[in-house]
Amino acid sequence: MHLFNTRMKRETDHLGTFLRAARDYGRKIGFKGTYLIEPKPMEPTKHQYDFDSATVIGFLREQDLLDDFKLNIEANHATLASHSFAHDLTVAAESGLLGSIDANRGDNQNGWDTDYFPMDLYDAIETMIILLEYGGIKPGGLNFDAKIRRNSTDLNDLFYAHIGGMDTFARGLLIAENIVKNPLYTEIRDGRYASFESGNGKKFEQGAIDLEKLRELAVQNGEPKTTSGRQELLENLINRMIR
Amino acid sequence: MHLFNTRMKRETDHLGTFLRAARDYGRKIGFKGTYLIEPKPMEPTKHQYDFDSATVIGFLREQDLLDDFKLNIEANHATLASHSFAHDLTVAAESGLLGSIDANRGDNQNGWDTDYFPMDLYDAIETMIILLEYGGIKPGGLNFDAKIRRNSTDLNDLFYAHIGGMDTFARGLLIAENIVKNPLYTEIRDGRYASFESGNGKKFEQGAIDLEKLRELAVQNGEPKTTSGRQELLENLINRMIR
Amino acid sequence: MHLFNTRMKRETDHLGTFLRAARDYGRKIGFKGTYLIEPKPMEPTKHQYDFDSATVIGFLREQDLLDDFKLNIEANHATLASHSFAHDLTVAAESGLLGSIDANRGDNQNGWDTDYFPMDLYDAIETMIILLEYGGIKPGGLNFDAKIRRNSTDLNDLFYAHIGGMDTFARGLLIAENIVKNPLYTEIRDGRYASFESGNGKKFEQGAIDLEKLRELAVQNGEPKTTSGRQELLENLINRMIR
Amino acid sequence: MHLFNTRMKRETDHLGTFLRAARDYGRKIGFKGTYLIEPKPMEPTKHQYDFDSATVIGFLREQDLLDDFKLNIEANHATLASHSFAHDLTVAAESGLLGSIDANRGDNQNGWDTDYFPMDLYDAIETMIILLEYGGIKPGGLNFDAKIRRNSTDLNDLFYAHIGGMDTFARGLLIAENIVKNPLYTEIRDGRYASFESGNGKKFEQGAIDLEKLRELAVQNGEPKTTSGRQELLENLINRMIR
Repeated sequence: MHLFNTRMKRETDHLGTFLRAARDYGRKIGFKGTYLIEPKPMEPTKHQYDFDSATVIGFLREQDLLDDFKLNIEANHATLASHSFAHDLTVAAESGLLGSIDANRGDNQNGWDTDYFPMDLYDAIETMIILLEYGGIKPGGLNFDAKIRRNSTDLNDLFYAHIGGMDTFARGLLIAENIVKNPLYTEIRDGRYASFESGNGKKFEQGAIDLEKLRELAVQNGEPKTTSGRQELLENLINRMIR
Repeated sequence: MHLFNTRMKRETDHLGTFLRAARDYGRKIGFKGTYLIEPKPMEPTKHQYDFDSATVIGFLREQDLLDDFKLNIEANHATLASHSFAHDLTVAAESGLLGSIDANRGDNQNGWDTDYFPMDLYDAIETMIILLEYGGIKPGGLNFDAKIRRNSTDLNDLFYAHIGGMDTFARGLLIAENIVKNPLYTEIRDGRYASFESGNGKKFEQGAIDLEKLRELAVQNGEPKTTSGRQELLENLINRMIR
Repeated sequence: MHLFNTRMKRETDHLGTFLRAARDYGRKIGFKGTYLIEPKPMEPTKHQYDFDSATVIGFLREQDLLDDFKLNIEANHATLASHSFAHDLTVAAESGLLGSIDANRGDNQNGWDTDYFPMDLYDAIETMIILLEYGGIKPGGLNFDAKIRRNSTDLNDLFYAHIGGMDTFARGLLIAENIVKNPLYTEIRDGRYASFESGNGKKFEQGAIDLEKLRELAVQNGEPKTTSGRQELLENLINRMIR
Repeated sequence: MHLFNTRMKRETDHLGTFLRAARDYGRKIGFKGTYLIEPKPMEPTKHQYDFDSATVIGFLREQDLLDDFKLNIEANHATLASHSFAHDLTVAAESGLLGSIDANRGDNQNGWDTDYFPMDLYDAIETMIILLEYGGIKPGGLNFDAKIRRNSTDLNDLFYAHIGGMDTFARGLLIAENIVKNPLYTEIRDGRYASFESGNGKKFEQGAIDLEKLRELAVQNGEPKTTSGRQELLENLINRMIR
């Protein structure tokens, strides 16, 4: 909670040592599953060592835990870390480390864990696009780490909330499928990386072009052609698919 | 920008004096319209005197400008003031002071004016519910105070953005109408205030019940019955109406 | 907590009605003191009607409670409302409505009420400058609405915290006095408003110059002379006075 | 700027490939210095790959750049990433990767890069404690990436600002030295880790205690003794050293 009574690195190393011991014990007794770790900024401490997806992935890599651990991403933790839910899901998924999801929702105008039920269609669509693109989540699933509001005082409200959350994600999946299958979506995204699929772009990705050669190519090719990112068109596409 | 070289109240009074002079001049030359003033937190100065709807309404009341001015609410200014867009619209509308709208969108994970085009259906639906409930906006309308993204570099992107923004609000209006007409919506809201429509509740609203009488009623009536606010059910209703 | 099951204005009016009844009862039984009301953003509800000093002052004016109520400003509530502590103190003090202070401290990188003990000298200095400038606080005083940290687990920590908080404000008062008495401080601030002390500036403040006359003066006087706000010099002055 | 036209991992890999090429070229032409990279959240893009110290260190490790790069930490970038300046300095320093500092200051109640001059003594003290504890900064130094305020319109203001910034850090260094030399400071911090200096604690740090042995020790030792973190006492110490 306070930097001057703390050795952050020593504590992070302690955590790594402990997790390796836990992993070793699990493997010894025959556990073959994946361990899950959840990023969480700010609560309860000020200098949280597991702030967001990128921080936790860096920690797993440094502590030699990448082969055994995956991430459990909580929507409201992502937003408290100043990221969108989809951002932290993507960071985890693109590293092959998206293991499970705590599906809830924060309040965009406050700064603590509200754990609302997930009723936002955009969040659900974006989540499902990421799952479709990166091969689903393993070993986990979608878990409601959510509670009904303080003024939802009836037993029925629990049902409304769970039904609403489930419907939102089910509908999100259907919409996401239509988006991912839409040629517009893939064209825009893949088009932006087309130059890396062959020739010098591909060689660059393979690390086969040094800085001097890169400079030569830049001089030869002149000013690169500007290609629009088509952000508004993609946003329109999402809205059109919401039916 | 700095409190210690500033007399906030003196400057606010100067602003009031200037606006009264402008109002008087307008009336003198025959202008019969409504003046508009826009809340804006933080930019460019640190101690902005027109932070949000509530602050500006308080200023207009103090400066005796309530009869001539209404508010222009900008979505991204509301969110920068830690309010939702709908919150600041409601504060203005319930005081009869909603005059016009700058329809744009902020980024929920940053802290400056991004002026995205308004593509969020929830924002559009909430805006339109408020307009339907409080009799529209006069004298203004919906204005796109928005710009395309830095990576939207084609002329076409301007069209995509304007079409998307217009469609979002048009669709929002259709959905809002279905919500406002839905008996569930009005029942939940009106039900919460039913006890003020007659009897002692009504007398209380009229200021005809003093504190001693209030205490007597509390003793007589015992613990009030808890009524759920049905927040999740209302959220489900909104999602169901999005078709 | 949710706009669509709520009538904000009706609830605000209910609060006003209740406070007037309480005020009337107090006066009737001989209470001559000042009532205190505390701004508080976001907790526990989303659409808090008493967000900050400006909002509460606007509420008191509308509800005809200005003669009986003053504000209790809490440091951590001001920062949660996106204002500095000194900002909200100034807004209240300049309206003659600063009644008492909850002296605590928030964490500048999170978004909830931490209620740290007030150990920040700058906060204490700024508070004391405001109290010295606006004639102190009446009827209240400085109250520690604070708690020790979760990892401060000894009885002694309670003493350290209270001693630290008291010393910070005592020292802040001594430093503030030296700043307020420093000719540099008053020169910079008063210099910026000198043109309103006589002549046309004074007439403007009195509302005796209409828009046409203002335009005439602007044409006659040409581009106004730029005067530096000397913000960095003022910050240096504060640091120099911290001894 | 938008997740759905982007392959984050592919772009991060491109950046790594480019930086390795730049490093190789530098080494080839005899450059023996350290490369510097600066964390920066949110500006100009939404999904910044270099959000904070922890993220950038993770990136350097993954891209095999740890031996050649260090970090340049900017105060205002740390705060925009929801960390204190001291937090991000510590994360870099404890990994041996603190290479240089952009000494400026943000505004704690807004959300963009204000680049104020660094006049806050607490920031300067904390920075200097970290530099004293972790052996200084190499190869860089303290650089004012700061600008005077918009209302500081005189040439003199540039001098006031630079003098103020330099004096603040110079004074911070003197105060930091007194804190670091104070037995109280080291006792509190080192005391919290004393159990790891010998015996089973040391063996744990060396990875020589497996989970079963850890459990045995926990059963043998019972509930651990609570030791206060003494956060308020440390804050008092800092204030006392400010003279």
